[in-house]
Amino acid sequence: MIASTTHKTSSVTVPFNHSNSTAKSCNLSLQSLPYKQTSIIAHMDKSLEVSTSTIKQELPLKIGIVGLGAFGQFLAKAFQRQGHNVLGTSRSDYSEYCKDNGIDFFRDLNGLCEAQPDVLLVCSSILSTEDVVRGIPFHKLRPDTIIADVLSVKQFAKNLLLDVVPSDFGILCTHPMFGKFSGKNSWEGLRFVFDKVRISGNSAQQRKCEQFLNIFQDEGCEMVEMSCEEHDQYAAESQFITHTVARILSNMNLESTPIDTKGYETLMQLTKNTVSHGSDLYDGLFLYNVNAIKQASSIQYKY
Amino acid sequence: MIASTTHKTSSVTVPFNHSNSTAKSCNLSLQSLPYKQTSIIAHMDKSLEVSTSTIKQELPLKIGIVGLGAFGQFLAKAFQRQGHNVLGTSRSDYSEYCKDNGIDFFRDLNGLCEAQPDVLLVCSSILSTEDVVRGIPFHKLRPDTIIADVLSVKQFAKNLLLDVVPSDFGILCTHPMFGKFSGKNSWEGLRFVFDKVRISGNSAQQRKCEQFLNIFQDEGCEMVEMSCEEHDQYAAESQFITHTVARILSNMNLESTPIDTKGYETLMQLTKNTVSHGSDLYDGLFLYNVNAIKQASSIQYKY
Repeated sequence: MIASTTHKTSSVTVPFNHSNSTAKSCNLSLQSLPYKQTSIIAHMDKSLEVSTSTIKQELPLKIGIVGLGAFGQFLAKAFQRQGHNVLGTSRSDYSEYCKDNGIDFFRDLNGLCEAQPDVLLVCSSILSTEDVVRGIPFHKLRPDTIIADVLSVKQFAKNLLLDVVPSDFGILCTHPMFGKFSGKNSWEGLRFVFDKVRISGNSAQQRKCEQFLNIFQDEGCEMVEMSCEEHDQYAAESQFITHTVARILSNMNLESTPIDTKGYETLMQLTKNTVSHGSDLYDGLFLYNVNAIKQASSIQYKY
Repeated sequence: MIASTTHKTSSVTVPFNHSNSTAKSCNLSLQSLPYKQTSIIAHMDKSLEVSTSTIKQELPLKIGIVGLGAFGQFLAKAFQRQGHNVLGTSRSDYSEYCKDNGIDFFRDLNGLCEAQPDVLLVCSSILSTEDVVRGIPFHKLRPDTIIADVLSVKQFAKNLLLDVVPSDFGILCTHPMFGKFSGKNSWEGLRFVFDKVRISGNSAQQRKCEQFLNIFQDEGCEMVEMSCEEHDQYAAESQFITHTVARILSNMNLESTPIDTKGYETLMQLTKNTVSHGSDLYDGLFLYNVNAIKQASSIQYKY
């Protein structure tokens, strides 16, 4: 786990010329300032920033989370650990939780968007995401804002965002392949899938996108850049099967016995962790991943 | 893991009288000799042994394994680690394996029984056990020999042994709730179920039974004394469900993807470990545990 006060390492590619060689590039590993210092820089004249074409001086991001359920809260903690500012809104009133956890809470999407986050991260359930996204007051946001999501079904998210989000805005589809149980102690080695669906090249938007992705990289995630279509094909097998097995077992109300094998203990734990997401996630996985039906038929057939 | 040369601790209860108290008992923790020394004692005059009513001086057991498949071999290693002598026979020719691993191999049950093991441990598959047990030449064994088994279905084993084994022989039904995967590195905390179906009280048979059980205790197992009937009720839920899930998933030929979740990785590993037992075990669990049918119907219904 990277403590919020430690130095972060960023990798920047700069042109490298030498008389004995043709132009090539080399990777410089630069240490950015710890977040307490970058917070001060955030209040300084922007003109003092060194050009990003040579050295990246990262200011903390302002990340607006839409949907402060268990997963939104879980992600917010990591964003804060790494010195970013977190804002949030949710259908339910999380003002007390946010007050206790250093998150700026807004009663609705209008207030959140007026605060102009760099990244607006949609953390709502699959089933409610279309309404949420169609309700974003884009005119209140800066036009280079990145709209990102963490939905477990990615083609649906991509198509929805491409349909609704104005053309200047960035679109970043992501899926952390872990949750509050598997990522409880550390995100080291856990997979983070992302698809830069629409990010302007060589721009502030691109830098902010990289900075957002670096949060997960710096937490130790295995970064997997993959199209939304590929993700859904793989996820139908891995994620849908896991949830289906857990759901069947959960409906059987299995109980621990005095003679549980390790295998059975594993299944019980998997069931407990998986069904804690509630049926909304399962229904969403099933209804919004075109590959899922095929897998469901396969389970029935093989049984 | 207890190394074969370390001292083993045995607990012996002796009467304790004191003028200020009524008769009560206290537990004395006595260190028995390491096995290399007890091996020497085994060749000394038996009359030199201290009476077992006060101090237990354990000679290594001679354990005859019937069925030297993966599980039989796995158990044999622990028996040897703790200084016991292992003999074995199997349908297939394991003479080379046995030669390399310090096990006395016999071509058939006759030869093994003529060597007069203290414990004859049946490690055959569920489906072949009835034939194996009915084929034991009991007249070649000492009449106080303990016939033990490690079958995953215990009512069947108990009824079979009570039906076939002559009345002087001991019967010990056991089920280690682990295998070569879960018990690969250590047996610490793994459950070992046993039912002393027929063991003569206060006898050499009883001492040998305790000595045999101590092998598992000394390896760190959680010892669970339980009737065969109770075992089968619990196992129908825990073991049968685990094997059924693994079998369904195995038939689906699931493959690892670049974005596997930890839950999916767990299911894949469980499937791999469980189906490695082969279909004989699964068929046995299903056919020889009366509680299994009920669980099977439950899976189908809940799906």
